[in-house]
Amino acid sequence: MDRLIEELKKIPSIGAKTAQRIAFYIIGLPSEEADRLADAIKNAKLKTFYCSTCNSLTDIEPCFFCSDKGRDDSMLCIVEEPFNITSIEKTGIYRGRYHVLLGTLSPLKGRGPDELNTDKLIERVKGANFKEIIIATNPTVEGEATALFLAKLLQDFNIKLTRLAMGLPVGSEMDYADQVTIKKSLEGRTELKE
Amino acid sequence: MDRLIEELKKIPSIGAKTAQRIAFYIIGLPSEEADRLADAIKNAKLKTFYCSTCNSLTDIEPCFFCSDKGRDDSMLCIVEEPFNITSIEKTGIYRGRYHVLLGTLSPLKGRGPDELNTDKLIERVKGANFKEIIIATNPTVEGEATALFLAKLLQDFNIKLTRLAMGLPVGSEMDYADQVTIKKSLEGRTELKE
Repeated sequence: MDRLIEELKKIPSIGAKTAQRIAFYIIGLPSEEADRLADAIKNAKLKTFYCSTCNSLTDIEPCFFCSDKGRDDSMLCIVEEPFNITSIEKTGIYRGRYHVLLGTLSPLKGRGPDELNTDKLIERVKGANFKEIIIATNPTVEGEATALFLAKLLQDFNIKLTRLAMGLPVGSEMDYADQVTIKKSLEGRTELKE
Repeated sequence: MDRLIEELKKIPSIGAKTAQRIAFYIIGLPSEEADRLADAIKNAKLKTFYCSTCNSLTDIEPCFFCSDKGRDDSMLCIVEEPFNITSIEKTGIYRGRYHVLLGTLSPLKGRGPDELNTDKLIERVKGANFKEIIIATNPTVEGEATALFLAKLLQDFNIKLTRLAMGLPVGSEMDYADQVTIKKSLEGRTELKE
């Protein structure tokens, strides 16, 4: 039981007390349920891997997004991490392909252009026929730097390069927004059409 | 002293304890400082009023923004409240005129088109030569409804009507944003130019 607690404590957001509570819960489970949990952990690790085309997490090769014939082959959306795909899919308005960077440029953390593995992206863009590439990295300092780096890298392909709009979040009030966000929302203002 | 505490308690965000603390502070002040505070309150109320042209709070008529000859007469920015002007001025990129609605449409609070006092706005637009009107109400339900209402009202003037961009706030991460905001940031995506 001590070993179980030790293993549980390594999980982010689980402290000593929670680990103990989970350990007691597991001990109290019927054998077959404990086995199901253990198997689920083993299988998740065994059967999940990064898609060789787009780097998203998948249990089939190529992944669901790369193999779906119903998706638009003329659009590519570049995101930082596999879970960003979920955020974009939930909006229901994007039907193109994805590419996951698995990180951003971050000089402070020692991640330069070499760590970004852009060769794979470039090879993919060369072999495909994208009309638009949406660089959907986060609007953080690192995400912005990565977006500019990618824009430079991709500028010779004659493909329309776009970036997610920055501005006021829906439902928010202007007086709680920071200056830079208000500035972006002014610069990026959109025309109202009837 | 009880009367002072009672008056102070009426101020939003000041409770009984804070009111008492402030009252003791005021009692402890030298007479001339207490007078200065009292005069400041009286004068603020006496000398501040709504600009007859744009409804912003001012102590001169017309207000600073309406009388400044250096500002761009071809742009008008419509905001909900006088303090929204401060938010936009801080960005430093807008040099046009302002119009303050002093509220939004809000059926739940009994504020319909009549309460919005749009006659004054319409008269002003008729007499001026605006090329663009930025409807900078908040991206809340009420602000959006007001923006659509104003867009309808102003559509026959042949003036470009724009709205602040909605999207991801600068510095934020996509996985903390709500679906609707991500959707807006995809729809409003901007082209990257070198």
